[in-house]
Amino acid sequence: MRIVVVGGVAAGMSAASQAKRRVKEADVVALEKTGDVSYGSCGMPYNLMRADNPMDELVVLTADNFRNKRSIDVRLFQEAKKINREKKEVEVWDNKENKAYNISYDKLVIATGARAINLSLQKQVKGVFMLRTLEDGKRLKNFIKERKPKKAFLVGAGRIALEIVHALHELGINTVLVKKRPGRILPQFEEEISEKVEAKLEEKGIKFISGVEIKGFMEKDGFLKKVVTTEGEFDADLSIISIGVNPNAEIAKEAGINIGKTKAIEVDRYLRTSDKDIFACGDCCEHYHRLLKKPVFSPSGTVANKQGRIAGANAIGANIIYPGVVGTSVFRLCDLTVARTGLLREEIKEDFVKTIILSQTRGHAYPGSSPIKIVLFSEKGTGRLLGAQMIGKEYVWGRINVVAAGLYKDFTVDDLSSLDMAYSPPFSPVWDPLLIAANRAKKFI
Amino acid sequence: MRIVVVGGVAAGMSAASQAKRRVKEADVVALEKTGDVSYGSCGMPYNLMRADNPMDELVVLTADNFRNKRSIDVRLFQEAKKINREKKEVEVWDNKENKAYNISYDKLVIATGARAINLSLQKQVKGVFMLRTLEDGKRLKNFIKERKPKKAFLVGAGRIALEIVHALHELGINTVLVKKRPGRILPQFEEEISEKVEAKLEEKGIKFISGVEIKGFMEKDGFLKKVVTTEGEFDADLSIISIGVNPNAEIAKEAGINIGKTKAIEVDRYLRTSDKDIFACGDCCEHYHRLLKKPVFSPSGTVANKQGRIAGANAIGANIIYPGVVGTSVFRLCDLTVARTGLLREEIKEDFVKTIILSQTRGHAYPGSSPIKIVLFSEKGTGRLLGAQMIGKEYVWGRINVVAAGLYKDFTVDDLSSLDMAYSPPFSPVWDPLLIAANRAKKFI
Repeated sequence: MRIVVVGGVAAGMSAASQAKRRVKEADVVALEKTGDVSYGSCGMPYNLMRADNPMDELVVLTADNFRNKRSIDVRLFQEAKKINREKKEVEVWDNKENKAYNISYDKLVIATGARAINLSLQKQVKGVFMLRTLEDGKRLKNFIKERKPKKAFLVGAGRIALEIVHALHELGINTVLVKKRPGRILPQFEEEISEKVEAKLEEKGIKFISGVEIKGFMEKDGFLKKVVTTEGEFDADLSIISIGVNPNAEIAKEAGINIGKTKAIEVDRYLRTSDKDIFACGDCCEHYHRLLKKPVFSPSGTVANKQGRIAGANAIGANIIYPGVVGTSVFRLCDLTVARTGLLREEIKEDFVKTIILSQTRGHAYPGSSPIKIVLFSEKGTGRLLGAQMIGKEYVWGRINVVAAGLYKDFTVDDLSSLDMAYSPPFSPVWDPLLIAANRAKKFI
Repeated sequence: MRIVVVGGVAAGMSAASQAKRRVKEADVVALEKTGDVSYGSCGMPYNLMRADNPMDELVVLTADNFRNKRSIDVRLFQEAKKINREKKEVEVWDNKENKAYNISYDKLVIATGARAINLSLQKQVKGVFMLRTLEDGKRLKNFIKERKPKKAFLVGAGRIALEIVHALHELGINTVLVKKRPGRILPQFEEEISEKVEAKLEEKGIKFISGVEIKGFMEKDGFLKKVVTTEGEFDADLSIISIGVNPNAEIAKEAGINIGKTKAIEVDRYLRTSDKDIFACGDCCEHYHRLLKKPVFSPSGTVANKQGRIAGANAIGANIIYPGVVGTSVFRLCDLTVARTGLLREEIKEDFVKTIILSQTRGHAYPGSSPIKIVLFSEKGTGRLLGAQMIGKEYVWGRINVVAAGLYKDFTVDDLSSLDMAYSPPFSPVWDPLLIAANRAKKFI
């Protein structure tokens, strides 16, 4: 029995490990086109701000660890080029030996991840970066170390763009953040959250401008000098493009495997593709959304790890269902934590109630307490929880997870308001902000 | 319509406020035997460690606030002595005027709280304290300020005793902590938690001795000098007794209202006592436990607030069910957070699986990560979650609440392992410790 895994980051190495753990005799091969496996790419923006820590510390296990401790045949710099489903073979390009070869499989796991979306106009100017692979991270970090850029121009308005902004701010680099569409930052969040984020950027002296389209990069001696936009020119010696990712689904598509509406690989709840011998997991495939009851494209490191584990197990004969996402995410921006779970307003089809509350993170008169804002969506009539968004300096992560747990089992706002949450002044007011929000919502159901 | 509330702290003032909010015309009278209403007694140990902050800052709303803003007739220093159910009257002793009077009620809410258990041998020695009412807190704080004690002798081994130990340590007072029964600290928790707590006490130079019975206090010039115990004499100029609380149920008992097995006032799920016109809430009454499906005595500020609200609403004509507790609590000890929810081992009747995991609080290579230990109880066979205990320096509060939410709706460990928890390196490893614990438990169900 041979399991071939294409892609060696979060989903791929989880799948390989799980398959091998379940069936010791299985021949498990993992093909990775870069030189790095099993790294936490979500940590890159945070690593960036600590100049003395190498990006490599994000590697959880090396290829040798997998080979020696887990007996997985990890092959670096090996790029899967084509899947021959009839012969059950993968055509591989060996980037070290510069030659092609075929490897046969009994079951195949596609874990090719996603790639950063590029600006179509971008030409090779030194100082313009994307941040997706560990290689990207190392290059960017090296550039910052060697060139000591003073002015950065960041394109994007999502979570990762903001994490990078935070990192550049910590490094003392003067940063302008722009996005193409007019309007506020984090447009998928509610206005009440976005305005707090924009206020934080302003407080930190980070300029945010929306409705800005990049026309080109001007260089001097091969290095970035200015960014030319529809809103004028900006001096910059560093530019980072962080405008989202696209699934690496081409290899599957070319093999005739079904691609979903989201352009990611279609999988069933067992992470099987349209070919029963081929599984997919992580950022290359679709993710079942428990509330929308349909697949979405929701790239994330934690989802990739969970899916990899299930795809690996099922490839070797298990029959585990992927429970799905409910749309949870969190990030830090300077001293703020921003989080969401459940449906965004644009995803809500139901007649809904929106509740906004502002409360405190700690008990009455307890030092260090700070404001926390909660937006709660619930269904009119039934009171079913639909989603939540939060922003504050602390205890946001824990509270969003309570709502995420509630969404998993169709809690109503009445259920949420009934929870026996842990109370002690260092952690919460006697009425937890979540309970306050739920009680408020109940009045309008 | 007159609602009389006996007791003006958390439950009582919540009940009074809720009744008045629902029916503006109602005549709502709150009788409080001390001079303080609506204070957060849970904050007292934490306030104690900040020498410059008066205990009074724990008062959320003053009697005048309730009178002027909420039109509630708050009467301080008025002690309810007797309930005459036939006449629907309460006999009150006015401690200001030193005279008795009767007040009639349509509905009565008993919110008399609980009192600290005293050592039967205790005589009046200056320097021996309990910490229950705000008055206790003020006296203790004042004593520390004036007498500057150097050596404290603390009796107790529960959560509040440990919070006080923490406070005394912060104040630089050399402290010995003793408990009567032999054995470890926090005996209701599992050994894996207790040992971490004991290690922390040792690290901080706080001596903990179990199996110590107090025989008496020796004084000099009226002030505490030594504590005499079965294990010898201890020099001490301050002693605090924190060995639990008993419900103030006497007034109800004397009126012929049913008292439960726990010795607290028996109430139904609507917080009605055995007299349909009399409700009870907070630390004086029993609390429905959702997992045990029976009443327990579970005194807590947050429970008191929730119950007060419901008792007040139901007294004025609503019909709200009290959802009950699941046994959640949390406290801080120095830099540690200790939390539990669900059943304790001794409460579990089912055949159970105990899972222990040690993980990290933050993402791989993220600075500031620290160990977190989780003990999970689940039912053998079904995998139903039964309870959890945790200890660590951060993110314990959030994780215990996720389990508390799960317990509310009968989650299994499979459900817990399926949660779409918020992931980002500052808050969690890519596999959250809770998911690791749930996955581990699944193997043994």
